[in-house]
Amino acid sequence: MTDFEIEIIGLIAACLTTISFMPQVYKIWKYKNSNGISLSMYLFMLSGVIIWFLYGFLIGSFSVMLANFIAAVLQMIIIYYKLKLK
Amino acid sequence: MTDFEIEIIGLIAACLTTISFMPQVYKIWKYKNSNGISLSMYLFMLSGVIIWFLYGFLIGSFSVMLANFIAAVLQMIIIYYKLKLK
Repeated sequence: MTDFEIEIIGLIAACLTTISFMPQVYKIWKYKNSNGISLSMYLFMLSGVIIWFLYGFLIGSFSVMLANFIAAVLQMIIIYYKLKLK
Repeated sequence: MTDFEIEIIGLIAACLTTISFMPQVYKIWKYKNSNGISLSMYLFMLSGVIIWFLYGFLIGSFSVMLANFIAAVLQMIIIYYKLKLK
């Protein structure tokens, strides 16, 4: 398997985990209800994805960097709604 | 920076994103309320982490493999509760 093919697999994984945040953002926005959402979860996750981004840079993985950059932005949106609707 | 040091950073990231699922599992279990939780989010995420695991294997990253293996197990628990409490 070539590096290019491996990176395609990484990008598919990146797309899936990135898209997975969309329904949550939509649901909070639509129902204006963030009761079931755990703030601590998203704060831990945000710290984690920032360090994953650094790790992706250090191992030279474009997929890891891209996925965690977008995840960080989406998680900041969810955290904003959670704090606003508290 | 050595490969060992880089892998330590990866493992810190892995710990943070793994721990981030714990409060969600606890919250669903404690309040028996999964209304704010998006099932589609977790189904997408589960598919994603399984492919991330494969990608981690292909690029030889222990951190990526470990983080996504544990994430998959925790996400299956959340999906189980979501379907059970529906």
